[in-house]
Amino acid sequence: MTLLFLSTAERGAVWQRVFDAAGEPIVIGEDAVEDRDAITHLLCWNPPADLSRYPNLKAVICAGAGVDHLPPMPEGVVLSRTVAPGIEEMVRDWTVMASLMLHRDMPAYLDQAARGDWQARPTRPARTRRVGIMGTGRIGALVAESLRDLGFPVAGLSRSGRPVAGMDIYAPDRTETFLARSDLLICLLPLTDETRGLMDARFLSCLPQGALLVQAGRGAQLDLDALRAALDSGQVAAAALDVTEPEPLPADHWAWRDPRVIVTPHVAALTNHEEGARHALAVIEATRRGAPVPGGVDPDRGY
Amino acid sequence: MTLLFLSTAERGAVWQRVFDAAGEPIVIGEDAVEDRDAITHLLCWNPPADLSRYPNLKAVICAGAGVDHLPPMPEGVVLSRTVAPGIEEMVRDWTVMASLMLHRDMPAYLDQAARGDWQARPTRPARTRRVGIMGTGRIGALVAESLRDLGFPVAGLSRSGRPVAGMDIYAPDRTETFLARSDLLICLLPLTDETRGLMDARFLSCLPQGALLVQAGRGAQLDLDALRAALDSGQVAAAALDVTEPEPLPADHWAWRDPRVIVTPHVAALTNHEEGARHALAVIEATRRGAPVPGGVDPDRGY
Ligand SMILES: NC(=O)c1ccc[n+]([C@@H]2O[C@H](COP(=O)([O-])OP(=O)(O)OC[C@H]3O[C@@H](n4cnc5c(N)ncnc54)[C@H](OP(=O)(O)O)[C@@H]3O)[C@@H](O)[C@H]2O)c1
Ligand SMILES: NC(=O)c1ccc[n+]([C@@H]2O[C@H](COP(=O)([O-])OP(=O)(O)OC[C@H]3O[C@@H](n4cnc5c(N)ncnc54)[C@H](OP(=O)(O)O)[C@@H]3O)[C@@H](O)[C@H]2O)c1
Repeated sequence: MTLLFLSTAERGAVWQRVFDAAGEPIVIGEDAVEDRDAITHLLCWNPPADLSRYPNLKAVICAGAGVDHLPPMPEGVVLSRTVAPGIEEMVRDWTVMASLMLHRDMPAYLDQAARGDWQARPTRPARTRRVGIMGTGRIGALVAESLRDLGFPVAGLSRSGRPVAGMDIYAPDRTETFLARSDLLICLLPLTDETRGLMDARFLSCLPQGALLVQAGRGAQLDLDALRAALDSGQVAAAALDVTEPEPLPADHWAWRDPRVIVTPHVAALTNHEEGARHALAVIEATRRGAPVPGGVDPDRGY
Repeated sequence: MTLLFLSTAERGAVWQRVFDAAGEPIVIGEDAVEDRDAITHLLCWNPPADLSRYPNLKAVICAGAGVDHLPPMPEGVVLSRTVAPGIEEMVRDWTVMASLMLHRDMPAYLDQAARGDWQARPTRPARTRRVGIMGTGRIGALVAESLRDLGFPVAGLSRSGRPVAGMDIYAPDRTETFLARSDLLICLLPLTDETRGLMDARFLSCLPQGALLVQAGRGAQLDLDALRAALDSGQVAAAALDVTEPEPLPADHWAWRDPRVIVTPHVAALTNHEEGARHALAVIEATRRGAPVPGGVDPDRGY
């Protein structure tokens, strides 16, 4: 088995080292391919247009945690997204930070600070702020645990509604009930046909008045115009966005300068290249054993 | 036993209700005192000048968590600061928020946001950011647990150096060693003769280059001029301050508008009046049993 690595030279050097240490062959860049038949695995963000050039390809490994930007895979090729504890913990940390910032009124305090205004605002204890997490997968479950430890009551929404310890779980048919109880809504959903445009005006109107929104999923899930209207009506009190549609957010976009909105430039997680390489080694190992690959994406569900 | 309550009428109403439910006598305001001999406990932020008016006074209960603003108590009167899980959890939440904001470069991202600048900055995992907590008492221990759960290596500094589970603890004679290992320094110390002015230029110079500082103790522990110089030299990369000297921080103070500094107006904890009243009931109960009062302040140590 041989992995073809299609990303920057800098990252390639890290991968080369990890693969050499593991005794697994790696080829850096398409120009270096001598035998196309040998290529069984491909690492990329965007795959080359014509995958049929690699007739023995078994798996495409996406360098990111989301695969919503990828075309369908050819017959017989599985798609794996990078799953790595480092990524998940980083998104957890960003999401806990953003949740606490909204819970503790930081958007308003930052706005006051710009005017040198020393004025305490009412605070409520964590136990009175009901958190709702959309997506109770690898990252959502980590976030739930941290926020529960900080005293927040936490419920979750997932596609299957499968139980997760320590949380009430809602399935999509009970979305409205779930939203009505979510004072602080966190989105950690993958982008799929079902979640694209999910958070629109009608959706936001199901939240309690003055709700808080943390968006760490994918930009295209949230209609920013609907968010703005909800902020203006007081339906949503404040929001923290790590992902937006489009990205980069244009420099003159209203969200950058709205005191009720915190924007970070899609940095909740940055892939650690060594972890990424270890994930790829685990995919190769699973292929060899004929086992399901880690991070395997179900083409029907889209995640 | 009777408690004399000296604070706002609004708070007094809450206390009256809690004391009535417990069947304990409470007098709201000095004007309402009919029998000075009956007063055994006093609730206040600042006590009246002449405490000898209450010859049977046993305890003064300070409405806050810190007692550094109070004069020495007369012979035979113990001083109790308000200890309450709600206060401690609120300070924990603010401190975890501030620590994550500095760890994840929020001061720089907020500055970028003001310019609409979508630019990722390097991130490091929590396990590479060594946290040092000054003060491993009730709040410091809570903060340590949360930050450890998020993957940060945590050490603590305390007066006694007494062991706390899960942390290396340093006593004051090893302050320099403690500082040299603290990439993110958190202050949760009481204000005493020993901690007043503690964080000066020399102190900050013992931190690793580019350290981060979270100040949730008392303003007078940190020399803001020394902080500014340390920020300018790069010795300190960013700081989050909930307490300052003076308070309120004047509207034209440099710290309000320095992009490397986050200031909140002493709001890490706001006392919950019901919790405060329950603390006072516990003090009265301990007095009755002749037991040490909760939140008892050692006059020699000053905390
Ligand atoms: N901002 C960033 O830097 C960043 C970094 C990494 C990841 N992310 C985002 O975080 C997402 C989650 O990552 P993960 O590793 O936790 O993924 P995961 O383990 O696959 O979990 C996905 C969760 O979403 C649920 N879900 C999917 N479609 C749904 C629908 N239509 N309605 C309700 N729930 C639905 C799934 O339900 P089931 O449990 O029933 O399957 C599952 O609980 C990624 O897809 C990505 O969008 C963002
Ligand atoms: N920003 C806010 O809104 C807010 C709200 C509440 C409290 N606070 C601050 O937080 C402080 C701590 O509260 P707490 O409830 O955790 O108090 P605590 O339980 O009394 O703990 C105080 C800690 O500080 C240590 N200490 C005292 N003097 C020291 C010195 N000279 N050198 C090194 N360590 C020293 C003590 O050491 P030992 O363990 O050896 O006794 C103890 O670990 C309060 O005093 C107050 O200043 C701020």
